[in-house]
Amino acid sequence: MSLKPLPPGSTVGILGGGQLGRMLAIAAAELGFRTEVLCPDPGSPAFQVASAAHVAAYEDEAALRRFAEACDVVTFEFENVPARAVEVLEALTRVCPSATSLAVCQDRGQEKELLDRLRIPTAAWALIEGPGDIQSAAGRLGRNAVLKSRRFGYDGKGQARLDEHLDAAAAWRVVGAAPAILEERVPFLREVSVIGVRGGDGSFAAYDVAENRHEGGILVESRAPARLAKATAEEALSIARRIMEALEHVGVMGIEMFVTEADGGERLLVNELAPRVHNTGHWTQDGCIASQFEAHIRAVADWPLPSTARHSDAVMANLIGADADAWPALAAETGLALHLYGKSEVRPGRKMGHATRILPLGTLESGG
Amino acid sequence: MSLKPLPPGSTVGILGGGQLGRMLAIAAAELGFRTEVLCPDPGSPAFQVASAAHVAAYEDEAALRRFAEACDVVTFEFENVPARAVEVLEALTRVCPSATSLAVCQDRGQEKELLDRLRIPTAAWALIEGPGDIQSAAGRLGRNAVLKSRRFGYDGKGQARLDEHLDAAAAWRVVGAAPAILEERVPFLREVSVIGVRGGDGSFAAYDVAENRHEGGILVESRAPARLAKATAEEALSIARRIMEALEHVGVMGIEMFVTEADGGERLLVNELAPRVHNTGHWTQDGCIASQFEAHIRAVADWPLPSTARHSDAVMANLIGADADAWPALAAETGLALHLYGKSEVRPGRKMGHATRILPLGTLESGG
Repeated sequence: MSLKPLPPGSTVGILGGGQLGRMLAIAAAELGFRTEVLCPDPGSPAFQVASAAHVAAYEDEAALRRFAEACDVVTFEFENVPARAVEVLEALTRVCPSATSLAVCQDRGQEKELLDRLRIPTAAWALIEGPGDIQSAAGRLGRNAVLKSRRFGYDGKGQARLDEHLDAAAAWRVVGAAPAILEERVPFLREVSVIGVRGGDGSFAAYDVAENRHEGGILVESRAPARLAKATAEEALSIARRIMEALEHVGVMGIEMFVTEADGGERLLVNELAPRVHNTGHWTQDGCIASQFEAHIRAVADWPLPSTARHSDAVMANLIGADADAWPALAAETGLALHLYGKSEVRPGRKMGHATRILPLGTLESGG
Repeated sequence: MSLKPLPPGSTVGILGGGQLGRMLAIAAAELGFRTEVLCPDPGSPAFQVASAAHVAAYEDEAALRRFAEACDVVTFEFENVPARAVEVLEALTRVCPSATSLAVCQDRGQEKELLDRLRIPTAAWALIEGPGDIQSAAGRLGRNAVLKSRRFGYDGKGQARLDEHLDAAAAWRVVGAAPAILEERVPFLREVSVIGVRGGDGSFAAYDVAENRHEGGILVESRAPARLAKATAEEALSIARRIMEALEHVGVMGIEMFVTEADGGERLLVNELAPRVHNTGHWTQDGCIASQFEAHIRAVADWPLPSTARHSDAVMANLIGADADAWPALAAETGLALHLYGKSEVRPGRKMGHATRILPLGTLESGG
């Protein structure tokens, strides 16, 4: 399939005005595109760098139509977009990634079913329709399991560890008394992620695997390269490609995996899919020729995918809440690339920026 | 002198809405600043990425006052700012670089006088007040000389080669019948430039010397590193520092130099100063941890200067006029970072974008 790339000067629409939308808008501008951003919050960070701002609810169909009519392509900074919004947009303009990618990735149940179908290993899991299902599933998976709402979970929200909640009913309430999955908690050596990108012509590229550290469900640090055997890293990229091809995904996808120990070697279990640019790929801005944001914009604009080559080793630290108050010290650190999101209000747990340390290639242990 | 850095969320004002203003605005946003841009052209590329746009003439004092009041610091994308505009702005807010830097750098006569005072070598030159001065100066410098208007010259405009104009009166008309300088044309081995940055506390940093190629007065290509003996490269940085200190310049300055042959070695002659981010520094976006645009924003915001370390070799090519029509082929080239300026109309000689090829450190011959 041959692509007809969107010419520079075209307008890229972004649904969602947070830091991901902001960094997407900057990347689009670097390629010569206009950007329009739709977000309900008038103080959205992305509005500060967009060519035009649409302050509107994701349910405001008249606003969605005006937005779609102004845009040559529309993309998303997050996956929890109401299905009806996608329908309204798709009737009027090209939308990337597709409704299918979004639908599967906004539902942990569908995500796991897809992975099972592709025979891609995950932690053992079960669908939970009500509190009654929890007991029977726990009987099978053990109590070292976590209940996760199927939809609208991020940064560890909508999750309850079963061993901390003696009572299934309590866990059910914590996840919002809505359809969920129960997932075995597997002991892992490390957490890694693949940032892959797929074009509308089926072309595929991926960045080097990153190694991630979470605290309280929130990403704290990513480093590239990951400490991973070469064969495991290759397997991670191959898994990412199979998932993205199965979804016919166009754009960037972030795929989180656990590295577990099996027979003295490494085994990968896929944990979570995000059909968008991903926090664990922020290091690509400073460690690679082209960032994940540029890769996503190129893919949704039907441009050739960029080089995903890494020119440096990189360690990215999220600046969460009051972390960002340390900006004067961070700004003074040599070799640290500081990215601040233009959010006026500091709130606990709020992602305010990130700081990426750049090191010569080969400085970090790769395990390969 | 200790600096009080401007906190993130502050507003950086940029006078001028072309590609330099656009790339400054993007760099400011990456550091968490809001940006406002003032430019008379409603289609200014920088407006597309700015938080707010002021469409106004540089002579519109009411508009300049509204702009200054909205900004915590104001800077410039070009040096030919009317002195009165700077006065109006300086009365209301911090302005960087200073009126002195601008005044000296917008006048080739003052520029040359400064260099003479600092005993920094230049090509032989003479002040020209009228056509009568040309004959006498040519008697001293020879006819292999170029007449350059003192003010408002850029990209080779306002220049006349004397050997092509038999008639001094004709040359005088070409440069606009206004005060000028006559400058000896020296045979040079190559053209190089230093992108230096100086903080309000006197701190100084500079990127590796770039080697440049001009055609018809317009920059075609820059590469870093330059092919230059190590001692010559060090001398170039030292010259840049002396000039910037003499002007108490705050921000980035681009300093163009000729490398000539002298006694079998290399000798530097300073050609031109630009008190701003400079086309020959665009390679820093992709070749360095921090770009010249970030360096400038940090300096004018009283932040610590960034690392100017280079992580890759780089070759930047300007996309001029119809060059930009080749964007599909350029977008498909692996390892090429493409930057397009969002200019809707292609005109001959108009800078539409640039493309930077990134190569592993040590790929390019350095001469050092």
